[in-house]
Amino acid sequence: MPLLVTGSIGVDTVETPAGRRDNVIGGSAVYFSYAASFFAPVRLVGVVGEDAPRELFNVFEHRDVDTGGLEVRKGSKTFRWHGSYLKDLNEAESVQTDLNVLAERAPKIPDNFRDSRYVFLANTHPVLQQEMLCCLKEPRLIVADTMNLWINTARADLVKLLGMIHGLVLNDGEARLLTEKKNLIEAARDVLKMGPKFVVIKKGEHGCLMVSERGTFVLPAYPADKVVDPTGAGDSFAGGMMGYLATQGNFSPATIKRALAFGTVVASYTISDFSLAGLQKTDRDAIDERWHHYKQAMDF
Amino acid sequence: MPLLVTGSIGVDTVETPAGRRDNVIGGSAVYFSYAASFFAPVRLVGVVGEDAPRELFNVFEHRDVDTGGLEVRKGSKTFRWHGSYLKDLNEAESVQTDLNVLAERAPKIPDNFRDSRYVFLANTHPVLQQEMLCCLKEPRLIVADTMNLWINTARADLVKLLGMIHGLVLNDGEARLLTEKKNLIEAARDVLKMGPKFVVIKKGEHGCLMVSERGTFVLPAYPADKVVDPTGAGDSFAGGMMGYLATQGNFSPATIKRALAFGTVVASYTISDFSLAGLQKTDRDAIDERWHHYKQAMDF
Repeated sequence: MPLLVTGSIGVDTVETPAGRRDNVIGGSAVYFSYAASFFAPVRLVGVVGEDAPRELFNVFEHRDVDTGGLEVRKGSKTFRWHGSYLKDLNEAESVQTDLNVLAERAPKIPDNFRDSRYVFLANTHPVLQQEMLCCLKEPRLIVADTMNLWINTARADLVKLLGMIHGLVLNDGEARLLTEKKNLIEAARDVLKMGPKFVVIKKGEHGCLMVSERGTFVLPAYPADKVVDPTGAGDSFAGGMMGYLATQGNFSPATIKRALAFGTVVASYTISDFSLAGLQKTDRDAIDERWHHYKQAMDF
Repeated sequence: MPLLVTGSIGVDTVETPAGRRDNVIGGSAVYFSYAASFFAPVRLVGVVGEDAPRELFNVFEHRDVDTGGLEVRKGSKTFRWHGSYLKDLNEAESVQTDLNVLAERAPKIPDNFRDSRYVFLANTHPVLQQEMLCCLKEPRLIVADTMNLWINTARADLVKLLGMIHGLVLNDGEARLLTEKKNLIEAARDVLKMGPKFVVIKKGEHGCLMVSERGTFVLPAYPADKVVDPTGAGDSFAGGMMGYLATQGNFSPATIKRALAFGTVVASYTISDFSLAGLQKTDRDAIDERWHHYKQAMDF
């Protein structure tokens, strides 16, 4: 079942204790698409400027990612982000953010993408996220990500979006900011009252938490002894999760749990190297093997 | 199989976002003993001053805790601690610490305790921890806790202790301080090189991590929607873990995993109320039920 994603596509400069990389490929929709494509066909919707580097178009060669929704906008510049993890490997410090084309109008969803049943709205303004939904014929599972910026500056729009989606994925700090609850279980329950059927709270190196009406599920992160670059971990997690769900055709608690575990495992590859290099070095067999190892590492 | 514990016994004043309690029962050995006694008979070794409150002696009535090693020292004062969690529920700020009798000579292990096979050395000076070991006939499992203070001020003594024990339990900050490794898996591996067969790193609300030569085991904390007072959580965790191990007679990876899960569940009762009140409200049946619920909440 094809999986539609819309979100940022960009060029990153990243500093971590392991080194620095200038002008590498990044963006939430890029990490998400690569990660999800280990599981299901992906339809990517996004926009770059005419300065977009060639590598950005090559990255999905040989991947099951339809880039028919990737707009190269003339006269515009590609989104750029410069982040540093030198102070805290668990949280990026933005050195510079140039929204560029992301501050303009949203990209269009191609007509042949409108029948997508599985949809992930990566982080962007909640009004744009809502607009995307209007173009879809009969979505079966809509999951969104968000961030502090929109919680602070567009709360009403975000709350409206929450009434239109099935699942919300956000990190612990964002969940606390959105609900003003310190305890994450309480925070998750407050999010459920706003509309979503389930909420996934990402805790970085501490794993994740999923809360739905049917219960609570907790997962530690994959025990990694080498974290090179955490950029894209959350998007890769969401990609692995949604990619697996798109292959299953049901949303039972057991299916969602397995999906979260796949998300966790895929993210463990992302953080093992800079940019997409960690994901590019793995394949579905290796992911399945690590998934079983991870399952076993928790089983008691 | 009786389980010997030695550590602090004291009177706490605690402030948390849920309220404040003055002069309540506390101390690492007290939490440990109460928690372990859900599983196995406990032998408590510790020392208090002649000002020790009556409740301290009553707390183990009707519990399988032999207080024959509890010395009431004339002319000495009981250990007192005043801690605050107002800034961070995951880490206590010590407002005041009066070591009192804990700064004097260590208590004696009674002769009839010397055949104990399972031993937990709760946090105290590593030289005192070593002295305890000299009095034991044939210990089968020795696990110790430690803290920042000894890592900073008595590192050589602590390293010597590590060569004499089977397991070390410590929190994430302590593991990083001891090994100068930020990554916890790397830190744990460095601890193993110092002697212990296994190391358990407690991460508070983020669960725990166990590393041995045979592998790595990760566990999230029990998903609690109400944290009243985290005091004693780590000691209760160790108590549940060691109490369960003392009933098993083997240290297979599977047994140790189950033990860590029992520790996690017992600690979830401790944090649900002030002082020992959370533990006093539960029983072994409720613990077993929550253990199964916890296992299920992670199973995928």
